[in-house]
Amino acid sequence: MSTISARQYEPLTTESAIELAKKLQLFTNTSALTCEEIGDGNLNLVFRIVDHHSKKSIIIKQALPYAKVVGESWPLTLQRATIESHALRQFADVAREYVPKVYYSDQQLAVTIMEDLSHLDIVRKGLIKGKNYPLLSQHIGEYVAKTLFYTSDFALDPQEKKKLLKQFINPELCKITEDLVFTDPFFDHETNDYEVELKNDVESLWKDKPLLLEVAKLKEKFLTNSDALIHGDLHTGSIFASDSETKVIDPEFAFFGPLGFDLGQFIANLLLNAFGRTNSKRQILFHHIDVTWKTFKETFSFLWKEHSVEVFSKVDGYLDYVLQETFEDAIGFAGCEVIRRTIGLAHVADLDELNPFESRIAAKQNALQFGRELIKNRRNIQTTDQINQLFNEIVNVKETLA
Amino acid sequence: MSTISARQYEPLTTESAIELAKKLQLFTNTSALTCEEIGDGNLNLVFRIVDHHSKKSIIIKQALPYAKVVGESWPLTLQRATIESHALRQFADVAREYVPKVYYSDQQLAVTIMEDLSHLDIVRKGLIKGKNYPLLSQHIGEYVAKTLFYTSDFALDPQEKKKLLKQFINPELCKITEDLVFTDPFFDHETNDYEVELKNDVESLWKDKPLLLEVAKLKEKFLTNSDALIHGDLHTGSIFASDSETKVIDPEFAFFGPLGFDLGQFIANLLLNAFGRTNSKRQILFHHIDVTWKTFKETFSFLWKEHSVEVFSKVDGYLDYVLQETFEDAIGFAGCEVIRRTIGLAHVADLDELNPFESRIAAKQNALQFGRELIKNRRNIQTTDQINQLFNEIVNVKETLA
Repeated sequence: MSTISARQYEPLTTESAIELAKKLQLFTNTSALTCEEIGDGNLNLVFRIVDHHSKKSIIIKQALPYAKVVGESWPLTLQRATIESHALRQFADVAREYVPKVYYSDQQLAVTIMEDLSHLDIVRKGLIKGKNYPLLSQHIGEYVAKTLFYTSDFALDPQEKKKLLKQFINPELCKITEDLVFTDPFFDHETNDYEVELKNDVESLWKDKPLLLEVAKLKEKFLTNSDALIHGDLHTGSIFASDSETKVIDPEFAFFGPLGFDLGQFIANLLLNAFGRTNSKRQILFHHIDVTWKTFKETFSFLWKEHSVEVFSKVDGYLDYVLQETFEDAIGFAGCEVIRRTIGLAHVADLDELNPFESRIAAKQNALQFGRELIKNRRNIQTTDQINQLFNEIVNVKETLA
Repeated sequence: MSTISARQYEPLTTESAIELAKKLQLFTNTSALTCEEIGDGNLNLVFRIVDHHSKKSIIIKQALPYAKVVGESWPLTLQRATIESHALRQFADVAREYVPKVYYSDQQLAVTIMEDLSHLDIVRKGLIKGKNYPLLSQHIGEYVAKTLFYTSDFALDPQEKKKLLKQFINPELCKITEDLVFTDPFFDHETNDYEVELKNDVESLWKDKPLLLEVAKLKEKFLTNSDALIHGDLHTGSIFASDSETKVIDPEFAFFGPLGFDLGQFIANLLLNAFGRTNSKRQILFHHIDVTWKTFKETFSFLWKEHSVEVFSKVDGYLDYVLQETFEDAIGFAGCEVIRRTIGLAHVADLDELNPFESRIAAKQNALQFGRELIKNRRNIQTTDQINQLFNEIVNVKETLA
């Protein structure tokens, strides 16, 4: 393997991906290997190699030295491939059932070779088609609770935690979130992307001083708070699922950040899908939001009571305080995510593929209003029911008026 | 110099300290060098070398591989010498007038060679003697404002800040603070050290559930908040001063922590001195607390308005929010420091040398009560005047009753 590691970085092709799999002896019989590039992300190449005899398959993911979304003009170091493979292993240690297996990783080539999850759906695509994944929210609630708890000062000796934190300092990928989630959408910035029909809504948002102050606080939390190792990009495009299985992929944004961030991103992406649904079809999504929080809370509380190494964790009210802060932050982060996916650089198909055009614009207007309310009222939103109520107030009132 | 660097670590003696100074050619004439070990800290050797011809002098500080306070049983890596010399240089970049000059540092030997400040007093010793340093609070307010602002996300590009943060990850020294400031004094822990006459007060403190919850929140902030590069141990024994000069030494505890911590430690150590003074002699200390905060606020606000790189810093209310949070945290951290210096492992002479014994116990009882109030009421304390009022309520009422 040393000959492979010693190679200079170059982007793989379908041919060289197969060659790499052969060299690593990942297949016993290599006579019927085929390879296709299946990536639709912005930062990586993703190859799927199949052995048509055994039906065994693997994924080779390789980081690109730039972000595709803006061409080669946004250079990124390849270190994120190392972060990703380390994070996959870290998360597998505590939530193995929700993380793809890693077979091999190579810093030089910026490559991670892992389990092929093609038998599962990408959740965003499934939700857009109206599919349901009955265990999705239970699995994600548990995944988030376990990955956060076990990498926090509540489970780790603080000295060990600081060493781990050092390995996951991730300036470049954090910058993407700092800019695209927490900054650009709230100012008239060139990266923003929205329909001219939204101009009034967007300008009203930019003028909303109390909103901007709250976003500043949330951004500061993202910049300065290192509670636990978070996934950092837990949207529904980063999750594979079926009726029985859930797998979280792509933790290249992982770093030590605030407890509420992953929950906020996930909930926001369920909400983003809800804007395109009729009232009756929305309820399953609110059920998922409810179960996500409930499962997170129960799992985190159980781990806290059974495994906390922090002597203060036995103090009355401390767990409630941590959960309350996490919920409040999650609501605020969800609001930022809803807004940035509506008018920022990186959109979601849940909104962009809505038809007819008028419905799409109406859904986006709702999303902007709802995102603003989540951010400004996060202290008053104490339950997942209240998220549902707020959503109904904004969306149903308009539907009644229409 | 490479021959020196290549040497294995061993503790210096007065002889080998002189030899090192000669090898480094820090003195032009070496015929009349004398050296004495003047350290009274717990973690380091401190040598003062004087050239009796030129009257030039230097300090050689060397980290020990253990903490003296508990014998050799508390091992510490020597990395803190590197942290210290890096921090001295970092702080000198932005607040040169308040930081000793560094002439040389060597990671292998865990040595920092720096400006001799023997012409100045250690502030704690001076305050105990009743001396005043008229510019102390103005200088410290400015020092803290500049060192914090210029190492925060308000002054640094967040990517640059994260690289700097990585250099200052300081698990061992943080653990000392986590244990001795934020944990042990609040539980019946073997490291605690207090007079039997304080037993009731201490046990009442340990049973104060609302207090413990607030300490838990403050500890969590210390563990997870990386606002800026803080000194980490800014008590009056880490400050040299005269009528005109102030120098902050010993930043071996430096790491990226919460904005309020250094202010809290400094204010607490002024307060710790105040418990031993009569009412009229206390006022100068409250004046210093007032000037410290006022100067910090003015300097930080000026830098924010002139030099912030954070686009949100122009948002109405954001600066006020940051200052308010910093003040509230500082009050809470001050409360923890007052308590731990009274009953924890590391005491202060300001209290321990009070005579007669009854006055010492009374002062310590006041300190414990005051510390508890600071922690629990920090949200309601909005001004430095209110600190003074609260102090008077506790101390003067007792004096009147006595």
